[in-house]
Amino acid sequence: MTERVEEERNAVERYLVISSDCHAGLPNAQYRDWLDPRYHAAFEEEQVARAAIESELRSRGLRNEEFAEEWERDNEEGLRGGWDAARRDKELDADGVAGEVIFPDADAVTSGASAPFGAGLSQGGDRDPELLLAGARAHNRWLAELCADSPARRAGVAIVPILHDIDAAVAEIRWAADAGLRGGILIPSMWQPYAPYHDARYDPVWATCQDLELPVHVHSGTADRDSYGEYVGMYVSEVRWWSTRPLWFLMWAGKFEQFPGLRFVVTECGAFWVPDLLWTSDIVYDREHAAKKLGKELTAHLTMRPSEYFDRNCSIGASNTRRRELARRYEIGVGNLMWGNDFPHPEGTWPHTKEWLRAAFCDIPIDETQAILGGNAAEVYRFDVDALAPVVERIGPTPDELDQTGADAEGRHDKWAEVKAAGRPWITGVEAVEVPIA
Amino acid sequence: MTERVEEERNAVERYLVISSDCHAGLPNAQYRDWLDPRYHAAFEEEQVARAAIESELRSRGLRNEEFAEEWERDNEEGLRGGWDAARRDKELDADGVAGEVIFPDADAVTSGASAPFGAGLSQGGDRDPELLLAGARAHNRWLAELCADSPARRAGVAIVPILHDIDAAVAEIRWAADAGLRGGILIPSMWQPYAPYHDARYDPVWATCQDLELPVHVHSGTADRDSYGEYVGMYVSEVRWWSTRPLWFLMWAGKFEQFPGLRFVVTECGAFWVPDLLWTSDIVYDREHAAKKLGKELTAHLTMRPSEYFDRNCSIGASNTRRRELARRYEIGVGNLMWGNDFPHPEGTWPHTKEWLRAAFCDIPIDETQAILGGNAAEVYRFDVDALAPVVERIGPTPDELDQTGADAEGRHDKWAEVKAAGRPWITGVEAVEVPIA
Repeated sequence: MTERVEEERNAVERYLVISSDCHAGLPNAQYRDWLDPRYHAAFEEEQVARAAIESELRSRGLRNEEFAEEWERDNEEGLRGGWDAARRDKELDADGVAGEVIFPDADAVTSGASAPFGAGLSQGGDRDPELLLAGARAHNRWLAELCADSPARRAGVAIVPILHDIDAAVAEIRWAADAGLRGGILIPSMWQPYAPYHDARYDPVWATCQDLELPVHVHSGTADRDSYGEYVGMYVSEVRWWSTRPLWFLMWAGKFEQFPGLRFVVTECGAFWVPDLLWTSDIVYDREHAAKKLGKELTAHLTMRPSEYFDRNCSIGASNTRRRELARRYEIGVGNLMWGNDFPHPEGTWPHTKEWLRAAFCDIPIDETQAILGGNAAEVYRFDVDALAPVVERIGPTPDELDQTGADAEGRHDKWAEVKAAGRPWITGVEAVEVPIA
Repeated sequence: MTERVEEERNAVERYLVISSDCHAGLPNAQYRDWLDPRYHAAFEEEQVARAAIESELRSRGLRNEEFAEEWERDNEEGLRGGWDAARRDKELDADGVAGEVIFPDADAVTSGASAPFGAGLSQGGDRDPELLLAGARAHNRWLAELCADSPARRAGVAIVPILHDIDAAVAEIRWAADAGLRGGILIPSMWQPYAPYHDARYDPVWATCQDLELPVHVHSGTADRDSYGEYVGMYVSEVRWWSTRPLWFLMWAGKFEQFPGLRFVVTECGAFWVPDLLWTSDIVYDREHAAKKLGKELTAHLTMRPSEYFDRNCSIGASNTRRRELARRYEIGVGNLMWGNDFPHPEGTWPHTKEWLRAAFCDIPIDETQAILGGNAAEVYRFDVDALAPVVERIGPTPDELDQTGADAEGRHDKWAEVKAAGRPWITGVEAVEVPIA
């Protein structure tokens, strides 16, 4: 080990790992107890309708039944962590995860633990607004209790349907803040058929979240499903786009100018698309060649480059961050990336997080690993790092465990020097080598 | 000059440059002469409506009037090449461009040379279908005459509205082939409110184009404008997506499996997005971790990876190809990239193409430059390279002019060796350095 690597390692005994993308939800039927009783009849109806949808998904072959059975068999105990607080901590401990940001819908295979009335990841303007709010409120109240059980580790994200009734949305946001749900709020990714998110009618939502320091989230899930027919591949190719879309709507509409303290987070949509979004947006802002013909209204309401708003106002909940994405971290912004294990979803890294981390981060400098694995999330979600210290001490992975301190570690770090110096090359003017990867 | 560079240079005296993205159109009022007379009354009405729209664009500040005036003043003569055959060749000669693929809408600043009834780049399902077809037919007939004037140099692309009346579309495609419009056809990028392009109703279009060896194009222009309000930036951030979207609809629906000879070209949407589209699609096809839970219907109708269909069936009309895009050419596929000057649009490289080429291609190997600047387009559009040879001899740029043969040329080429060897790293498993740039 060289002196430099040793010094870096000494600075970080164990990583504070915060998963910026976890999920919790009660088994469907148990949400009944958290619902306003006047919705019980509707709830019973929905249970029947859900069963029919599940059966259709199975019969259309849209789910790999073999995989589903194996996943549920192999992880029977651990999956109870989707709603069982003690089991949850045990699973996260084993994964080396000290803190977590909690979204709804614990079961991403058979939708067996989802908030009522479509209030989870798939909430949108196509749902009955009264029921949607009732389902969100039921989930939020349960979630607040789950988080209160271990407040230092758990930052819960409240489901807030903001499309139909702005006043009700603001009231629920205030309730969430009072209830200690410092994870912020989850809004529908798609606003249709309501007004797009640049509309001033949503301003009270942004203002309230800014004032209460609650991050606003979109999370992948919804998409333009009606257009895909039977072709699941189209959903896969588009689903990230539909949830990242609100980011540039808010940005180009000047909402980050109007609400400079607003924090907007895009979760489980990957991070690979960020550099090109910033590149194409910045060069238009800077009136590069092809943008010269556009009128001054393009930027008249803005005072900074899109990438500057991004750095100030946005974060990426990048979940199971791939090497191809980490290779682009200097364009994305090291401070904007937040890793997550997506517990307890099968597309995440649980229950093998340490292996995934080693494979992805083995040649990433320790200080950057620190930021991406937990430091950035600690700031965005106001985790009390001192309160988490004993947990980290007990379960946090070490740089050694992430294979970051071997004899060749310094060389592996040095390969990023040029890319780091280039930063965002369209701004610095420095051409650099990148290391983008499978 | 090293021996290797000298050898490469000797193989290419002058580049055959084909612009895969040019535009031609009559000054609006002159289309009257090419229209079926029964649409003359509607045509007069449209001229009035168009003037009103232009005036609104100006008053809303959506156009940079100062830039528009300067552009038109500085290029008054050259812009006539939008419709004047002799002037056109003179402008392309000066740009070093021997062959061209011709799309509609010569005037991208004030829309003064656009096909009638919205039949140009903005054609879509929101137009009156009968008028749209009439406008397309008027333009196509004029275009066939323009191309017949210099058939070796000009590959015209027929406008074919395929949404409303499939039989009429197929008839127009057959007419275009008979009229020598070997550039292929331009279809609406957006199908709304008609069925998406995976629908079997469009199969006769794909079958006819396959049989007649006519490439099918989408070209940037339309977008979800109703959602942007006054915010032009949203249009800029999304316009490429709306026109690239049909590519993955055809791909995931298995249309490239069903029509193995179909050639699909995405023009003036950039090329930067291709690697991530192929990466995300291939790893899902290959059932990488996150795709395991999806059912077998995802790929049951496919026999190849998405990137293999892309290589066989798709090309990118990459227009003013940026260095950032060229740096990704081994993931995109060197054989899939076609440069274009976008003549006579101000966002293109005309009338300064040679300077742009030098800046972009100075460190690109000569054989790859040859493919991207003209070789690929020659194959896709069946240009008669022998017939073009005298033009190339007279006006084609040389590797010297592109700054590709200096003392340090070999070193500049060597820097790509690792990236080239890696190809598409998610398939080869080889991690490589890239050189992505501003």
